[in-house]
Amino acid sequence: MNVTPRVKEILSWYEGENPGVKTNLARLLMHGKLGGTGKLVILPVDQGYEHGPARSFAPNPAAYDPHYLYQLAIDAGLSAYAAPLGSLEQGADTFAGEVPLILKVNSANSLSDSVPDQAVLGSVDDALRLGCIGIGFTIYPGSDNCFTMQEDLAELTREAKAKGLMTVVWSYPRGGKVSKKGETALDIVAYAAHMAALMGATIIKVKPPEKGVDLKDAEKSYKDIKQDTLAERISHVMQASFNNKRVVVFSGGGAKDADALVEEITQINAGGGFGSIVGRNSFQREKSEAVALLNRIVDVYKG
Amino acid sequence: MNVTPRVKEILSWYEGENPGVKTNLARLLMHGKLGGTGKLVILPVDQGYEHGPARSFAPNPAAYDPHYLYQLAIDAGLSAYAAPLGSLEQGADTFAGEVPLILKVNSANSLSDSVPDQAVLGSVDDALRLGCIGIGFTIYPGSDNCFTMQEDLAELTREAKAKGLMTVVWSYPRGGKVSKKGETALDIVAYAAHMAALMGATIIKVKPPEKGVDLKDAEKSYKDIKQDTLAERISHVMQASFNNKRVVVFSGGGAKDADALVEEITQINAGGGFGSIVGRNSFQREKSEAVALLNRIVDVYKG
Amino acid sequence: MNVTPRVKEILSWYEGENPGVKTNLARLLMHGKLGGTGKLVILPVDQGYEHGPARSFAPNPAAYDPHYLYQLAIDAGLSAYAAPLGSLEQGADTFAGEVPLILKVNSANSLSDSVPDQAVLGSVDDALRLGCIGIGFTIYPGSDNCFTMQEDLAELTREAKAKGLMTVVWSYPRGGKVSKKGETALDIVAYAAHMAALMGATIIKVKPPEKGVDLKDAEKSYKDIKQDTLAERISHVMQASFNNKRVVVFSGGGAKDADALVEEITQINAGGGFGSIVGRNSFQREKSEAVALLNRIVDVYKG
Amino acid sequence: MNVTPRVKEILSWYEGENPGVKTNLARLLMHGKLGGTGKLVILPVDQGYEHGPARSFAPNPAAYDPHYLYQLAIDAGLSAYAAPLGSLEQGADTFAGEVPLILKVNSANSLSDSVPDQAVLGSVDDALRLGCIGIGFTIYPGSDNCFTMQEDLAELTREAKAKGLMTVVWSYPRGGKVSKKGETALDIVAYAAHMAALMGATIIKVKPPEKGVDLKDAEKSYKDIKQDTLAERISHVMQASFNNKRVVVFSGGGAKDADALVEEITQINAGGGFGSIVGRNSFQREKSEAVALLNRIVDVYKG
Amino acid sequence: MNVTPRVKEILSWYEGENPGVKTNLARLLMHGKLGGTGKLVILPVDQGYEHGPARSFAPNPAAYDPHYLYQLAIDAGLSAYAAPLGSLEQGADTFAGEVPLILKVNSANSLSDSVPDQAVLGSVDDALRLGCIGIGFTIYPGSDNCFTMQEDLAELTREAKAKGLMTVVWSYPRGGKVSKKGETALDIVAYAAHMAALMGATIIKVKPPEKGVDLKDAEKSYKDIKQDTLAERISHVMQASFNNKRVVVFSGGGAKDADALVEEITQINAGGGFGSIVGRNSFQREKSEAVALLNRIVDVYKG
Repeated sequence: MNVTPRVKEILSWYEGENPGVKTNLARLLMHGKLGGTGKLVILPVDQGYEHGPARSFAPNPAAYDPHYLYQLAIDAGLSAYAAPLGSLEQGADTFAGEVPLILKVNSANSLSDSVPDQAVLGSVDDALRLGCIGIGFTIYPGSDNCFTMQEDLAELTREAKAKGLMTVVWSYPRGGKVSKKGETALDIVAYAAHMAALMGATIIKVKPPEKGVDLKDAEKSYKDIKQDTLAERISHVMQASFNNKRVVVFSGGGAKDADALVEEITQINAGGGFGSIVGRNSFQREKSEAVALLNRIVDVYKG
Repeated sequence: MNVTPRVKEILSWYEGENPGVKTNLARLLMHGKLGGTGKLVILPVDQGYEHGPARSFAPNPAAYDPHYLYQLAIDAGLSAYAAPLGSLEQGADTFAGEVPLILKVNSANSLSDSVPDQAVLGSVDDALRLGCIGIGFTIYPGSDNCFTMQEDLAELTREAKAKGLMTVVWSYPRGGKVSKKGETALDIVAYAAHMAALMGATIIKVKPPEKGVDLKDAEKSYKDIKQDTLAERISHVMQASFNNKRVVVFSGGGAKDADALVEEITQINAGGGFGSIVGRNSFQREKSEAVALLNRIVDVYKG
Repeated sequence: MNVTPRVKEILSWYEGENPGVKTNLARLLMHGKLGGTGKLVILPVDQGYEHGPARSFAPNPAAYDPHYLYQLAIDAGLSAYAAPLGSLEQGADTFAGEVPLILKVNSANSLSDSVPDQAVLGSVDDALRLGCIGIGFTIYPGSDNCFTMQEDLAELTREAKAKGLMTVVWSYPRGGKVSKKGETALDIVAYAAHMAALMGATIIKVKPPEKGVDLKDAEKSYKDIKQDTLAERISHVMQASFNNKRVVVFSGGGAKDADALVEEITQINAGGGFGSIVGRNSFQREKSEAVALLNRIVDVYKG
Repeated sequence: MNVTPRVKEILSWYEGENPGVKTNLARLLMHGKLGGTGKLVILPVDQGYEHGPARSFAPNPAAYDPHYLYQLAIDAGLSAYAAPLGSLEQGADTFAGEVPLILKVNSANSLSDSVPDQAVLGSVDDALRLGCIGIGFTIYPGSDNCFTMQEDLAELTREAKAKGLMTVVWSYPRGGKVSKKGETALDIVAYAAHMAALMGATIIKVKPPEKGVDLKDAEKSYKDIKQDTLAERISHVMQASFNNKRVVVFSGGGAKDADALVEEITQINAGGGFGSIVGRNSFQREKSEAVALLNRIVDVYKG
Repeated sequence: MNVTPRVKEILSWYEGENPGVKTNLARLLMHGKLGGTGKLVILPVDQGYEHGPARSFAPNPAAYDPHYLYQLAIDAGLSAYAAPLGSLEQGADTFAGEVPLILKVNSANSLSDSVPDQAVLGSVDDALRLGCIGIGFTIYPGSDNCFTMQEDLAELTREAKAKGLMTVVWSYPRGGKVSKKGETALDIVAYAAHMAALMGATIIKVKPPEKGVDLKDAEKSYKDIKQDTLAERISHVMQASFNNKRVVVFSGGGAKDADALVEEITQINAGGGFGSIVGRNSFQREKSEAVALLNRIVDVYKG
């Protein structure tokens, strides 16, 4: 399929990127059921490392097998599959060329109780060797480690882009002045998206913002920003992302009722969000049910 | 489109390659009008460097503009476009994601009368920066420079594959014990393909072999090898390419009558060849005529 | 002996690895009395560095001599011998080619009372120079140092695998949210195995899991996971290891009664575990007694 | 099988080598039907690159497929299989662990008519990645390029041995003061073996020496050296190889009558040669015939 | 003088070392009055850096001059002289070839009150440039810095041995779980020697062990280990050093009565220790007295 005018328009926003990065962004945006629409749905599976295997896969034990996860992304016609090194390696050969891959290069774990941090476990060369279109990286703005994490991201971004790979930045404020509840407050999420854009993220991943302003200093600035509906809040996050000129996707969060999720995604779409990253809500459901739900989500974005 | 069983079968032959190389090979084999068939047609334009601009583009002056060449490959639904650094750079942004690119990293010229050689002008990093699926390299087995050219290829191959890029090797015997006429003799072309396979070429490019054996020492070995038809000769070249388990494509050679070219390609296809690289016979024709001819070629390979 | 179908099947699971890594894994799985069965028993001797010499070797002073340890692994027909640099060097020439070697590259010690950590003392080049089939590395998920340890492992893994060496990961949660007793709880051990798999471990080494769930957040996920018998718990750990597609071995722990150890190993085998790493229970016994016990263990895995 | 006393004795001669090199030498000498005897038979297939595919494989077209060559070495129970990069890659995964591999890193071709030379196409890292026990390299003492070839070998040897790989040196005098007929004269072959030993070759490969002295200056020295029988000549070559303390193997040469080959090998064995490298005489015969002949050769060395 | 059978026997224990390291060990063991006996006495002068100049040299102001220290080692016929960079440089030219030199590459100081640590001040290249036979390095097992110190030693060891230099490891437990008094307890000293052996130390330097077990966990293991006399304790330390197969030398400690020192050394010798490192007890005495005392010590080791 030829690159659509809408995808070409999106590529045109990334004027700082070389043709390699744009080519990989085009691969992402032209793949799967949403290919060509400018919208996207990604399957991310890093919960095994972050929450442990049983919390992640016991609800649907077939998902213990990395091949299952590849097949799920393929069968649902998703835009990409993102996972840590070991998961991607267990399938990259079998499924070569079937779905765009994103190597999640850093990972947190639930055993440590230190300040929020992640270990950098994958490299740009790993991503190239596995045929990925890009790397994924989490930052925790607010954490005592946030400067190191940001510097690591900056360095990896430089290397990745020089080699034509895109970056997907999970921007999750945590710690520091950010309250637990405030992690998803509108000001914090918008701030998170903006920081990722400023760090050169090709794709920005944030959580759906909730109503409220967490930083006292920001309250005054928000008095005229509409935030009653999720669509309004999404709209503000998009505004904070180079005035709607960055691809921002929103996480699906913990497992929830299918209708509630579809409603949330309808609002994300209405607010101008580009898509969703749906992990637990897909791989923790039995496969046919997961595919059915993903189809509904895709249909929302198809409009 | 999902990777077809035929393309998966072809990927399975490349057991020495990492998933990155296989992914890029899948991108090539899944793209364009022949996508999924296991066959391919590539547009190569290195004649400007090799023969000079007027000899290359005067027959169809629109082709002086690199954008024209990109558009030709796209409009004809070809599998890939291969060209030297400057040509690719002039269009890689405009056409990002529209057609798989191969960076031809070395180039000969028609001004030198030294022993056959080429200058290495592009790099693996250039190919990554431009979003290419692989690099192309010419060797001249037989030339007094052949050892150096082979060593350069070996080094670039190691680097390219480590980064997930495929290699396309133009294997063109020239000089040394090879007579001018013998450059396309069956034994020489089969030998050329075999050497490229042994050097790890992902895609092997040779000329359509003519009847005859050029190396005296090889004559005896050819007494039982059928070579009356081009299809028979192609079949032997394929045998010499890991017993049909490498993708070998054949050049279209100098401009010629369309019917003659289609007939030649019919024979290549009948002999088990995987496709064609059609340069002068496409870009030296006016565009609609070129696309029409390329459509006929594609149809041959579609079978 | 030819590589058996079972070993070939195991190799086929490691699709992300190059032939060098697979060759070394085949060397491991084809060696010794269990050669070809897909099961394995490894002799590890890093206790001298970790616990001091007398605590390790006073029960059987012959073991102060590194040659004794090589000879024990050889005489008992074990699959491999794993030890720190100095131990391996004192015997690698004398016993060249007699038993597969694993260089344990990092080591803890009992004098430090800092947060759990290990010093990286050996290198990939050391392993190659000594003729090893792989490197061994300990991580302490949970420790405040866990991020650094994981990053060190990631880097060493990349280097080792590029050179064709396998990795054996001792995954021992310690510190952080993990209680002392919880270090061997089922959820923690399964998590430990899963993390090692995601980091690309060729062989995963964990402790036999005990009943119970240590992380509060994981309790709910375990309500349907059987854990009454050791075999059931082993079975869950294997599930967490890419759905039984990674070679996981279990430590023998502190010196204990021979019958108790054999019973434990019978359960490990019944649960689908691939083998044991038996240190103190072998080298702290007088040699003939140690070999007799190891023979019993081997017999269990022979089935 | 435990390393035999004879193999241990052979290892003890290589006092300059680290345990990695000795381990790989032990792997070679303990493998296949001759495993443990100290004798060896290697299947080398570099003729495709050197003579062209038809001259190499037309007599037995099954051999066009690299998998066939692996299987031949395995079925005949040979000690090792040696080939250039592309050939080894096409099978290294499928046959991982089944037969020791030697990566032939440089290759000549029959198209060039320059002074004798070879292109260096493989690397030590390639050998490690493919799970090889060593690298193979050809030198042409006498050629105008001999100094460069020897320096390349010296550099590769340093790197290979530091990584624990052995070296196999094809020492084939050619050009310079060496007459065409003299390439296999006793003095030249003994000189070739000696040079390889002095360059640190783990295994030396030379041609069976013929009667006669090619270098005028050497004639006087040979007046008391017996050379009437091949066994006597082999005995002198062994003497020239650190007084019988290097493993020297002899090539089988062009295809010939089976009885003649077995008789030649009987003489090689009688003279103290360690084994044979049998290429064309094995892969150019139909498989069952080839295996039968290789069995006869193996039986000679078994004594 | 030819290398004596005893020294050859000692060299044979170092099977992991290349001939360069063995040659330097032979230089050490064949030099001075104890040359050939397998015993050795080294003059170390790093106290200036560690304790300050006046505490080190005021008792014998001649020792402020580095030349004096060289001359002392030479006049007393000692086996080697060990010192930090500046000391060695001030004399290495004047006394070139007169006494084996060991460059102490790290040094503590008495001004810092941080956790026990040392600064790495010299390099392997410095040692080569100065004609040294090896480098010396201190580790403080137990210290919060112990992991870093061990990693630094591991790296320097790799470099030093690759260049043919031996290593002398001052293994001094300090901090962590080690009590102040326990620093010289039998279990701690044996542990210290064992760790140094496992890190590949050519020569191990520890303090003469005192009666007692410092680590609670080790108490049980010591119930059958004799430790009443210093000779018995030395014997255990030697056992912990690869079962007597490493050269272990003991420090003389602070200045003390000559007879007491000689008696202590008599016990060290009786227990199987290989020698002494005598610093303050030599250079803090007036020269003739120092030489007389050193002669008495040498006589003890001559036996």
